[in-house]
Amino acid sequence: MHNCIYLDNSSTTKPCGSAVEEINKALLENWGNPSSLHELGVNAESILTETRETISSLIGCRCDEIFFTGGGTEGNNLAIRGAAAALIRRGNKIVTTSVEHPSVFNTCSYLEQNGFEVVYIKPERDGHIDPDKIISAADDKTVLVSMMLVNNETGCIFPVQDVAKTLKRNGCKALIHSDCVQAFGKMNIDTETLGVDLLTASGHKIHGPKGIGFLYKSKKINIKPIVFGGGQEKGLRSGTEAVPLAAGLNGAINELTVDTSLRHIGELHRYAADRLVASCGAVLNSPQNEILPYIINISVPGYRSETLLHFLESKGIFVSSGSACSKGKGSHVLNEMGLERDRIDSALRISFSRFSTENDIDRLCDALTEAKKTLHRK
Amino acid sequence: MHNCIYLDNSSTTKPCGSAVEEINKALLENWGNPSSLHELGVNAESILTETRETISSLIGCRCDEIFFTGGGTEGNNLAIRGAAAALIRRGNKIVTTSVEHPSVFNTCSYLEQNGFEVVYIKPERDGHIDPDKIISAADDKTVLVSMMLVNNETGCIFPVQDVAKTLKRNGCKALIHSDCVQAFGKMNIDTETLGVDLLTASGHKIHGPKGIGFLYKSKKINIKPIVFGGGQEKGLRSGTEAVPLAAGLNGAINELTVDTSLRHIGELHRYAADRLVASCGAVLNSPQNEILPYIINISVPGYRSETLLHFLESKGIFVSSGSACSKGKGSHVLNEMGLERDRIDSALRISFSRFSTENDIDRLCDALTEAKKTLHRK
Repeated sequence: MHNCIYLDNSSTTKPCGSAVEEINKALLENWGNPSSLHELGVNAESILTETRETISSLIGCRCDEIFFTGGGTEGNNLAIRGAAAALIRRGNKIVTTSVEHPSVFNTCSYLEQNGFEVVYIKPERDGHIDPDKIISAADDKTVLVSMMLVNNETGCIFPVQDVAKTLKRNGCKALIHSDCVQAFGKMNIDTETLGVDLLTASGHKIHGPKGIGFLYKSKKINIKPIVFGGGQEKGLRSGTEAVPLAAGLNGAINELTVDTSLRHIGELHRYAADRLVASCGAVLNSPQNEILPYIINISVPGYRSETLLHFLESKGIFVSSGSACSKGKGSHVLNEMGLERDRIDSALRISFSRFSTENDIDRLCDALTEAKKTLHRK
Repeated sequence: MHNCIYLDNSSTTKPCGSAVEEINKALLENWGNPSSLHELGVNAESILTETRETISSLIGCRCDEIFFTGGGTEGNNLAIRGAAAALIRRGNKIVTTSVEHPSVFNTCSYLEQNGFEVVYIKPERDGHIDPDKIISAADDKTVLVSMMLVNNETGCIFPVQDVAKTLKRNGCKALIHSDCVQAFGKMNIDTETLGVDLLTASGHKIHGPKGIGFLYKSKKINIKPIVFGGGQEKGLRSGTEAVPLAAGLNGAINELTVDTSLRHIGELHRYAADRLVASCGAVLNSPQNEILPYIINISVPGYRSETLLHFLESKGIFVSSGSACSKGKGSHVLNEMGLERDRIDSALRISFSRFSTENDIDRLCDALTEAKKTLHRK
């Protein structure tokens, strides 16, 4: 583990120093129940408030628009089903893309079985979404448009802002939700500029802890809860808040250097793209425009993803064959882009963190070169 | 905080040494995504497996019958709505008590708005539930009986085992769910003996971390998920598992000494009951039979709960006026028991942990005696 090259940061990241420190402080010193009326409760509640402030100043919203969740999956479920339940009288149509994370995709499928019509817009061959296709699909019956900001397999930035602005200008009343799990903390996000009503993020993709995320919900809209109980988080998410994780999330956000890291990762991405193509014969599945450079998706035609993944692992290099949540099934995203079977079967997702270096990429390229000499073509 | 007397352990507990240690180890050394196919994923998965083994050997079930949740509230929602959704074709009736935790009560209310009939059995005046009332309410249409094992305000042990056994003997097909959040880790629980199909527990009530709990679901039954996504936890609870919290839960369980602690708390409870009545003029709201001694509910007639609570707080003593999740509203549980307004308004819940001592109770009694001299009667 100590000498390993971890290039699977879109699956999860290593908790940073501040995250670990804040979690510990909360576990040892501030372990009250935020719902308790006494001092220990008040102190615990103040951690939640502080984290809400940190988040809201980062994404340009109010503190009382931030609701803690158990992670990105729960956040996406809450946003989509919460909006659907609140708006069912106004309409029953949802517009989304066909390459969302399973927590959006499967939630939409669930709603389809419960009286909703869902339109899934396919990406273009380069992985991008044509904003006009979303816009023209969103009609009077449409109550929700849900589109991720950054695709978790290709890194493509989807035209959330463009779509939101146009729809609102056209008088469309649909709420706009964006799954920002892969974008939050890695690029500048301003809820106002982006034009979203609902936004989901997760802690463990930005060196924070697993088990926490948040939903931004604009003050202007109402949605229904999907879990019922003691009425925590203003009734939107019942259950004792995971205070130490909120503290850890706060620590992780405070350690972020969004712009500096993005520049660094931008350079790293270009370096990786050049070397992977030139010296390893890789094909790029991620386009080179309108992307978040934290992710680069490649194929090494002739070699199966899993074989490559395990070869790299034997050299202490960790990448993935796609989304961790899809556990090794052939990439649904690349399939929707219309890529050929061979490219899909040989795809690797390389995903960076601000701690990634050129040396990591050199070692990855060396290992891939060796793989091609050592492994049999399938 | 350092010299404080914490007697609000049914709201939450201080994480124990092993819990903190295990959380740290996972954060620093084992932070992979359990869904990742590489070594880091496998290592993270092994923490989940280990925790499942620890839980299952404590409550007498199989490892693959344990499903991690974000806590007790989510667990109760999953058990009840998951069962309701799976069994709706067989019947639409649920039998429960009128003194369940809000996460059961409000989930049942939600189901009532969605086509279910819910029968709420009231407790007797001593806080206990008459098993015959539950049994006779459970008819052919009944798909679920949900009853907590230990009431969170009075400590009453409810007749789950008796009810489950009788219903099954009578051929009743209803599933049996028990919210064991206040019981798990504090008394011996064996799923087989108890006769439940579904059982909910939480980490932070037993010196584990907030943000994690588990659902026991018998292999013999199927329920539906309430959150959709990547299919983690065999499809029953999607979302990246909070591995460090699972590690912490494991640590907390491994530090439990159920029998020894129960004997200690039993003595403490008797000592407290005697002193509170004799020297503080308190009235006991908890009965003295069939209870888990971790909780003792009293009233100090003539003084408002909140006034007492804050007076005690000023002396560094923390108790609660009821469930933390009900945030200071007059106790619903005591109300259902038919207690008089004055007793409800002056109620305090004192709840122990294995770290509680006779000295804690002496200081509580001294402070209550002082309160009665100092405070004006309302």
